Amino acid sequence: MLEELKKIVYDANMLLPEFGLVTFTWGNVSGIDREKGLVAIKPSGVSYEKLRPEDIVIVDLDGNVVEGDLNPSTDMPSHVEFYKAFPKIGGAVHTHSPWATSWAQAGRGIPCYGTTHADYLYGEVPCLRVLTQEELDEGYEKNTGILVVDYFKDHDYEAMPAVLCKNHGPFTWGKTPEEAVHNAVVLEECAKMAAWTEMINPRVAPAPQRLQDKHYTRKHGPNAYYGQSK
Amino acid sequence: MLEELKKIVYDANMLLPEFGLVTFTWGNVSGIDREKGLVAIKPSGVSYEKLRPEDIVIVDLDGNVVEGDLNPSTDMPSHVEFYKAFPKIGGAVHTHSPWATSWAQAGRGIPCYGTTHADYLYGEVPCLRVLTQEELDEGYEKNTGILVVDYFKDHDYEAMPAVLCKNHGPFTWGKTPEEAVHNAVVLEECAKMAAWTEMINPRVAPAPQRLQDKHYTRKHGPNAYYGQSK
Amino acid sequence: MLEELKKIVYDANMLLPEFGLVTFTWGNVSGIDREKGLVAIKPSGVSYEKLRPEDIVIVDLDGNVVEGDLNPSTDMPSHVEFYKAFPKIGGAVHTHSPWATSWAQAGRGIPCYGTTHADYLYGEVPCLRVLTQEELDEGYEKNTGILVVDYFKDHDYEAMPAVLCKNHGPFTWGKTPEEAVHNAVVLEECAKMAAWTEMINPRVAPAPQRLQDKHYTRKHGPNAYYGQSK
Amino acid sequence: MLEELKKIVYDANMLLPEFGLVTFTWGNVSGIDREKGLVAIKPSGVSYEKLRPEDIVIVDLDGNVVEGDLNPSTDMPSHVEFYKAFPKIGGAVHTHSPWATSWAQAGRGIPCYGTTHADYLYGEVPCLRVLTQEELDEGYEKNTGILVVDYFKDHDYEAMPAVLCKNHGPFTWGKTPEEAVHNAVVLEECAKMAAWTEMINPRVAPAPQRLQDKHYTRKHGPNAYYGQSK
Repeated sequence: MLEELKKIVYDANMLLPEFGLVTFTWGNVSGIDREKGLVAIKPSGVSYEKLRPEDIVIVDLDGNVVEGDLNPSTDMPSHVEFYKAFPKIGGAVHTHSPWATSWAQAGRGIPCYGTTHADYLYGEVPCLRVLTQEELDEGYEKNTGILVVDYFKDHDYEAMPAVLCKNHGPFTWGKTPEEAVHNAVVLEECAKMAAWTEMINPRVAPAPQRLQDKHYTRKHGPNAYYGQSK
Repeated sequence: MLEELKKIVYDANMLLPEFGLVTFTWGNVSGIDREKGLVAIKPSGVSYEKLRPEDIVIVDLDGNVVEGDLNPSTDMPSHVEFYKAFPKIGGAVHTHSPWATSWAQAGRGIPCYGTTHADYLYGEVPCLRVLTQEELDEGYEKNTGILVVDYFKDHDYEAMPAVLCKNHGPFTWGKTPEEAVHNAVVLEECAKMAAWTEMINPRVAPAPQRLQDKHYTRKHGPNAYYGQSK
Repeated sequence: MLEELKKIVYDANMLLPEFGLVTFTWGNVSGIDREKGLVAIKPSGVSYEKLRPEDIVIVDLDGNVVEGDLNPSTDMPSHVEFYKAFPKIGGAVHTHSPWATSWAQAGRGIPCYGTTHADYLYGEVPCLRVLTQEELDEGYEKNTGILVVDYFKDHDYEAMPAVLCKNHGPFTWGKTPEEAVHNAVVLEECAKMAAWTEMINPRVAPAPQRLQDKHYTRKHGPNAYYGQSK
Repeated sequence: MLEELKKIVYDANMLLPEFGLVTFTWGNVSGIDREKGLVAIKPSGVSYEKLRPEDIVIVDLDGNVVEGDLNPSTDMPSHVEFYKAFPKIGGAVHTHSPWATSWAQAGRGIPCYGTTHADYLYGEVPCLRVLTQEELDEGYEKNTGILVVDYFKDHDYEAMPAVLCKNHGPFTWGKTPEEAVHNAVVLEECAKMAAWTEMINPRVAPAPQRLQDKHYTRKHGPNAYYGQSK
């Protein structure tokens, strides 16, 4: 079942070590078949060296395993919340990539200091609060997903396909699993350069809004002219 | 047409990922045939894994595509301005290499702290202002090129083959596309070491002028004695 | 004798350069056969390129060489103390991995700033004092082991499988030599991200205790649900 | 002539890119035949990809080329001064390795913060002044060598096989060209960790003298017991 999606999700997972975003098993990618309402996701705690396409687990939008012998990623309930709330996404990613995680540990959103950031992420990447004891007890991973989804009720999840969870790490998403990984790479690179920017100039301000707008609209929306897609 | 130049420009583009200067498609190299007045440049948004010599786009000095099925790099109008104003250059490069970009995001020129810098770049690498709303609206990439060219009306573009655009990133150039890439590598290395130098000694001053002069003239000008050329 | 253990210890040693934890010979892994009371350890000063399984040295719990033509690692007496005091460990590691060593040189324990740390290390990684002149003279490596062991008389060596020795570097341990190396990798990654976290926010506080508890118990103890083990 | 020495010096030069100490041609290794009083050194400005054993240049202790079609490294006169003043060295290295160079650019010696440093370098790595205009004019590279040699009239060049030249970069030496490269790697690693140590604890003090002494004598002198050499 869903062999093609499993392969796509497998391939997207394998991009994480290729781009240096994961140590050991600290990351996972999922993808969704919108017609069937089923999500394919990495199994929990399986090393990337040993992961095979057939190990990818299929769950429904209630988080029940529909196919697969292995446990799905423990972060699966967060992914499911994203798919339910963000109708235009096809893939989601969680990593502990070190620079993005360091911003999350520092409890700070990542300001937009330049066009590399503005090309993909519109404005400051938000850093959301730690869950309450009650939320942790009730369902840590599911409530993490709900916290993110709640934030994006007032924000555009397409213009900001990334979020930091305080003292934890980043999540990203995209139209496909591959695009979600792409956004995870962008986030890590921007997180790194934002830290270096503040190191070089501790009193730096975000990039002027006009430049952020120019770069974002150069790549996104009806007047985009970057690339070959015209 | 210009098959040899296309190959040279292709090879120089492929040096960017080899030297770790680009993530995804965040960079481009061009080269010029001065006799024909034609510029060869990377197509926009094409990944380095898929790029082929025949994909290189040829444009004239008004920025019109003369040959090639793909759109040229969106930064093409900046490159064209460089070629029109800097008669002795044969190649130009734009990247988002992380240390140079971090200085650009910090809004600071890169001071000359040592001989590694002085060997190639004479003095502080300038960091130019963000364009005005009017300049952005009228033609972002072309006006970026004009801003750079205006700066070098009063400065020596051969002695300083690099510039930072605030909140954006670096451009470099050279006698050939390969030399332009070489200068992009030098710039990134000097940007990195300058940041580390200030981290180790926040009150550091630039290298004494006499040492900067000694190293620059050891490699450049009539009394150069570095290397095998003579 | 103990050919299987030698191979396991050899393999675990070879993981150190693979994970980038050692330069030259700056690290060593040991493993124990609890039934025989014998420890297998890397020989001193032998490069990883030249190391062979048969070079692994066997010592008893008094530190006497039982088998092997080469001198055991100079750190052997520290390892032996760990095995005598920590009955549930099967492997131990010493490295000079740069981020953990930098915290040790700074004389600071590594605070728990996030879930990456909390998943493996319960609380702040301790940084122990420098030995006295008397302790150094009497037996540097043995007394280093005793210092560590003394600390863990009041602390849980299973919940905190890592320690820093001031102005020196880290030791880690685990149920097997491979797990001890795994913990050395985790420690280095957490040491790196803790330094970056403080760079991004100099006034940062450790992660809330409730989040540390949630993540640690998600992976350890009777209610663990991470991974496939169950 | 001196084919064996040329090969040794060639091999040692090729270790520089292998250990990540050089970008482009920014480094050189030499070795000496003490009986013949001849020095073998890398040619100037030749890339490591193209360097061959037969390209190594032979000079005498007055700096005259005795064999070889290429110009010797411009730093050759510095190397020659080392060989004349330091009778027990067999090899010397110059690089622009980024962390050591950043300390040199910062104008600071590298304090001994731990045992990694103390194992090889006895005390603070000195950072020497910039040459005067007169010294630069008279003979930059030769006077650089003389400055270093003068410093070591009052210091032990065997216990401190490394030096920084302000706003320039490091030199190291050793009993053989390979050991000189080894010391260059050690210096870079210690320079990196010293910077990180100060980042983690800006008020850090050097390692206690008793620990420095213990580690240095564990590896050097009549009571050394590290490694297999007994």
